[in-house]
Amino acid sequence: MAVKTILSEDMLPTRWYNIVPDMPAGSLKPPLDPATGEPVGPEALAPIFPMSLISQEVSTERFVDIPEEVQEIYKLWRPTPLIRARRLEKVLDTPAKIYFKYEGVSPAGSHKPNTSVPQAYFNREAGIKRIATETGAGQWGSAMALATQMFGMACTVYMVRISYEQKPYRRSMMEVWGAEVLASPTGRTNSGRAVLEKDPESLGSLGIAISEASEDAATHDDTNYSLGSVLNHVLMHQTVVGEECKQQMEIAGDYPDIVIGCIGGGSNYAGLAFPFMRDRLSGEKQVEFLAAEPSACPTVTRGKLTYDFGDALGSTPLFMMHTLGHDFTPPGIHAGGLRYHAMAPLISALVDTGNMSAVAYGQTEIFEAAVTFARAEAIIPAPESSHAIKAAIDEAVRAREAGEGRVILFNLSGHGHFDMSAYDQYLSGKLTDYAYPEEKIKESMAKIPKGTW
Amino acid sequence: MAVKTILSEDMLPTRWYNIVPDMPAGSLKPPLDPATGEPVGPEALAPIFPMSLISQEVSTERFVDIPEEVQEIYKLWRPTPLIRARRLEKVLDTPAKIYFKYEGVSPAGSHKPNTSVPQAYFNREAGIKRIATETGAGQWGSAMALATQMFGMACTVYMVRISYEQKPYRRSMMEVWGAEVLASPTGRTNSGRAVLEKDPESLGSLGIAISEASEDAATHDDTNYSLGSVLNHVLMHQTVVGEECKQQMEIAGDYPDIVIGCIGGGSNYAGLAFPFMRDRLSGEKQVEFLAAEPSACPTVTRGKLTYDFGDALGSTPLFMMHTLGHDFTPPGIHAGGLRYHAMAPLISALVDTGNMSAVAYGQTEIFEAAVTFARAEAIIPAPESSHAIKAAIDEAVRAREAGEGRVILFNLSGHGHFDMSAYDQYLSGKLTDYAYPEEKIKESMAKIPKGTW
Repeated sequence: MAVKTILSEDMLPTRWYNIVPDMPAGSLKPPLDPATGEPVGPEALAPIFPMSLISQEVSTERFVDIPEEVQEIYKLWRPTPLIRARRLEKVLDTPAKIYFKYEGVSPAGSHKPNTSVPQAYFNREAGIKRIATETGAGQWGSAMALATQMFGMACTVYMVRISYEQKPYRRSMMEVWGAEVLASPTGRTNSGRAVLEKDPESLGSLGIAISEASEDAATHDDTNYSLGSVLNHVLMHQTVVGEECKQQMEIAGDYPDIVIGCIGGGSNYAGLAFPFMRDRLSGEKQVEFLAAEPSACPTVTRGKLTYDFGDALGSTPLFMMHTLGHDFTPPGIHAGGLRYHAMAPLISALVDTGNMSAVAYGQTEIFEAAVTFARAEAIIPAPESSHAIKAAIDEAVRAREAGEGRVILFNLSGHGHFDMSAYDQYLSGKLTDYAYPEEKIKESMAKIPKGTW
Repeated sequence: MAVKTILSEDMLPTRWYNIVPDMPAGSLKPPLDPATGEPVGPEALAPIFPMSLISQEVSTERFVDIPEEVQEIYKLWRPTPLIRARRLEKVLDTPAKIYFKYEGVSPAGSHKPNTSVPQAYFNREAGIKRIATETGAGQWGSAMALATQMFGMACTVYMVRISYEQKPYRRSMMEVWGAEVLASPTGRTNSGRAVLEKDPESLGSLGIAISEASEDAATHDDTNYSLGSVLNHVLMHQTVVGEECKQQMEIAGDYPDIVIGCIGGGSNYAGLAFPFMRDRLSGEKQVEFLAAEPSACPTVTRGKLTYDFGDALGSTPLFMMHTLGHDFTPPGIHAGGLRYHAMAPLISALVDTGNMSAVAYGQTEIFEAAVTFARAEAIIPAPESSHAIKAAIDEAVRAREAGEGRVILFNLSGHGHFDMSAYDQYLSGKLTDYAYPEEKIKESMAKIPKGTW
């Protein structure tokens, strides 16, 4: 009885899928200059991104070749397995078939290297010697440390001080891969110094770390900045996941009725979903799309679709996206990768056009789902990915109640080896759910810029 | 250019290889009763092991079928990849080809579930409801927690108190998989109570934990004990690794000139090596075998081949094996899995008959090798497995110096995700090597029982 569907290396996809040309007409709005309200051109990104990535960001080509050197690095862990969760099906006593694509087999433990590797590559091709980036819990920082190491580049990671102190293991991981890891705020940048002047004991925030990393990149010719989600080209790099998965589903002899994933900035879900979304948008297949987010940061389920800044400080162009307000700061939930205030514009547009929907979960219920999954399928999932598990379980239970043999596919975006203290809290009954921070959301939503656009 | 050789599930081996019938004539000596000096029969093990495993322990059949239910669990992560370390070859500028078999993809992160799963299965088939076992750093305990969970059994893990307190993440992992984890010494067993009476603050030891777990098993009808290495049947279960690897090497179009692994009790190395050793013992192939151990616990390189107890307290039968004395306690090196005082009788006999050799390394040099490997091949290895990496690197450098294109194969038995604090110490220059504890070895060797056998 088949458990996994494995592809050999020669079936690794050679092209990424760019969903932009297939998006519903008029659904995508251009990024705007907050000063003028006019669309910004690609040149606005040139100080911190190489032209090759900027071209991908605005590309309308349906497929983009994956460079051979990137494929060689992908092959260190890709193709990743597609696993039929037969034991979970049995536990749930469901007639549904549950499949999951497992991205935790990457050396960094998540889907993030799917984009850090090409980003490092295209930067190196452009003559860049160093990448500056930020990291909260450490997942993106470790993916970028890995990628730069693979291409012989330097890497400076501005790690939010509170995580730097509380999560030393992710820091060690980045250092093993040769990155310089700094506790942000640092004294190295104007942004960092400004914060430290006001509060020498500052524990930092993702917003501050982003400002430090992008300032570092903007002020050094040999250095560029790099982002782990939200942008079009980042989502596109992740489609290697879904392109592999389509081949695997075909070998398994099934096609999903519903494609599920967790969303923070949107990249892991886009990676799995977009190649299947292509079939929906073309009218070839009827397939549903469901994304799960934390109720403590309910960007899509409770946020507003409008123009807002991509960063906390309001220094980026404005993007049309679901947002809770650019200075929304969610509570310190364990799913650190799902705490972004907004959603990728591509995901937002797909929600807006009725092509996908979203659901929000509290952290106690997602850990309950995580433990159920680990006891059935052996893998200990990341808290982020456990949102997808919870949604898949709910879907399988609905299928049982309806007596329907649906095919459920979800993305297990990473393992939980660096999240065991969160499991410990859950198992000892110390994990709390955060009340929906209505006031905070109102407050931050009030600061969304009000233009005439 | 191929990086990995992946087998599909239908190529999962269906039989384990039992090396006993192929061992050089007269090389294996029977376990003895310490009171009489007479060989012990299988019945001596019956109070704590099921008959099916005892039969495997003394079997002279060359191949033993892997039960289908065990194969189904293996398939959750097996077959594991064989990876050609091309990037490491390049870093070392060696004409040698370096292959490694990667066992870190198992949900517990090491090769250990290869035997915990069948051990749980055969116990359940014998009507056993609960497994009691011990764990030091937590690797074996987590493998057994996983295995019992897969078969719906209970699991009690006696975890050395110092590890219980210092390594809470491995404990959480076991609890996620439903095991009860106790800090040993406990007040539950006579052995535990005896220790606590003398020293209520005892930090525990592996010897004490073994005594507690085996007492628990011996005093409860529905409970058996389980061991993670050393015994013949444990080594046999691990041969699924080498049987897979032989198929993969054939697909890759190579055959190893040398097979390398780390040794603590000997099981991961035996697992990879024995199927290739079969070709050497039959005269079919000329292939070398090299095992790496820590210089802080130099069982094979500095110990004595003689009859000694398998446990610290002297309650087991006597086994003919390389030993440093049954109450030898090595310093607290980070490779916690390689701190056993003796070596599997099968490995010892192969060393004695000149079919394999061993080398010892200090922990600073193995972490240096680990970081070199992680920067080339992306995977962060376990400290235990890094002994094998160091030996493979040394071999590749020798090949470069000799201008020989040798084929090197080693077992990467696990990942280092739960060992990042050790990496942190290494990278910050705080890691120390332990001087060879000559006095301690002399002392413990003096306690090896002197029979007339």
